[in-house]
Amino acid sequence: MQTLDRLAIHTMTTKPWDLPTAVKKYSAAGIRGVGLWRQWLDGRPLSESRSLMDDHGLQAVSLVRSGFFPGLNATERQAALDDNHRALDEAAAVGAPQVVLVCGAKPELSLAENRKQITEGIAACIEHAGKVGVKLSIEPLHPMYADCRSAVNTIGQCNDIIDQLGDEWVGIAADVYHIWWDPQLEQEIKRAGKRIIGFHVCDWLTPTQDFLNDRGLMGEGCIDIKGIRAMVEATGFNGPIEVEIFSTRLWATDQDAFLSNIITACENHV
Amino acid sequence: MQTLDRLAIHTMTTKPWDLPTAVKKYSAAGIRGVGLWRQWLDGRPLSESRSLMDDHGLQAVSLVRSGFFPGLNATERQAALDDNHRALDEAAAVGAPQVVLVCGAKPELSLAENRKQITEGIAACIEHAGKVGVKLSIEPLHPMYADCRSAVNTIGQCNDIIDQLGDEWVGIAADVYHIWWDPQLEQEIKRAGKRIIGFHVCDWLTPTQDFLNDRGLMGEGCIDIKGIRAMVEATGFNGPIEVEIFSTRLWATDQDAFLSNIITACENHV
Repeated sequence: MQTLDRLAIHTMTTKPWDLPTAVKKYSAAGIRGVGLWRQWLDGRPLSESRSLMDDHGLQAVSLVRSGFFPGLNATERQAALDDNHRALDEAAAVGAPQVVLVCGAKPELSLAENRKQITEGIAACIEHAGKVGVKLSIEPLHPMYADCRSAVNTIGQCNDIIDQLGDEWVGIAADVYHIWWDPQLEQEIKRAGKRIIGFHVCDWLTPTQDFLNDRGLMGEGCIDIKGIRAMVEATGFNGPIEVEIFSTRLWATDQDAFLSNIITACENHV
Repeated sequence: MQTLDRLAIHTMTTKPWDLPTAVKKYSAAGIRGVGLWRQWLDGRPLSESRSLMDDHGLQAVSLVRSGFFPGLNATERQAALDDNHRALDEAAAVGAPQVVLVCGAKPELSLAENRKQITEGIAACIEHAGKVGVKLSIEPLHPMYADCRSAVNTIGQCNDIIDQLGDEWVGIAADVYHIWWDPQLEQEIKRAGKRIIGFHVCDWLTPTQDFLNDRGLMGEGCIDIKGIRAMVEATGFNGPIEVEIFSTRLWATDQDAFLSNIITACENHV
């Protein structure tokens, strides 16, 4: 099945599982890709995390996440750059071809200032990205996160940033949760073209109970995931389909059954 | 003070007060405009509601709200049109020059279908709007409401709709809460020009605790209200500044003190 071959699971999706458990379970289910959250690297050498994946026939398709560029002063901004450099190093060490950028925002700063600092921050990481051979993947976040998580909220903004910075080491992660509502989605994905280097899926629930941790399994909500996938693949994208679900409700269920449901949902709704 | 002269309070902002109480309190505070929610009309003849306002030197600057055009079948869609016609009649009866449209969305329908039904629904109300002399004011809602409250989420979409339908009886209500994040805000407000017929203020809190009822008083949050006001007034708009705050937290406080705080906040942050 074409979708399963390309399926990758974010470790945050099965939050109760540590990395040794996750790689064992994913592998047993026939999955080959991992969206590797950095917290899952804690407590062992990077080489050991990589071996865990290698030994189970798994590939880290993305390291999640860095970014958070805006700062209230130079010290904060430098700390963010340092962390982004570390993330690029970590990605290289575990064999992940891209680092996903949640660009950040400080409610104390103006939107314009947040957006300026983000573009400058990404620019300041490009040289290191090229050096270690890992791409920076800008993930636009839903406008409901514009105050404190990301002031980059549309594919259009990503395109504007990449127009400035070039696309050799900078691309876009298109997560249906963040972009499904956008009236300019089709035209901006088309404009992005080969810049789209990541595709994340989940669903939008009605009503959504929590700003962060009430995402749905694909098919549970209202997002036209197949339609967005078609737009993304019309650009030539044939990379991993990354399942990224934050859900207090689903984390509380049996994770083996949940993983099985994810695979079924991907077959039917992606 | 120029802002206070133009200040209007939505009855929903002081939810604990019924209409007789609200008009008495607003008037005593020197306020002249009311954003009149339809629930506040219940239980007495329309003429009596109008007299209540007249007697206190108050003017209904908007009737809030109708819209909700998308339906799963023809019966639902017709019921929505009937309700919009009633809202226009009510607005005319109480002397409100515009009805605010929350355009609606059904998660069971595609975005494209929701948006199509909205445009058709507004189109079907224009003749009656002209007959009773009341404008239809499209309020784009924040994208976090695109599933079930409004599939119209940007000023740009309003402009596209009005390009089709004409602007004699259709305008735009710009609420800072819904539009502050939009990277195309300035250009689309400029494009809207005289189509902007409403300006609503409140603030965005970090963190926001609830999708509906956790708005902030102006100055409590991160929205550049003065900046957006300047964009809106650059179009020539000099109409009411409508305070529309839904807040479980603020409704639980003393409403006299809250009204006083609103006036201070308008002086300092709008």
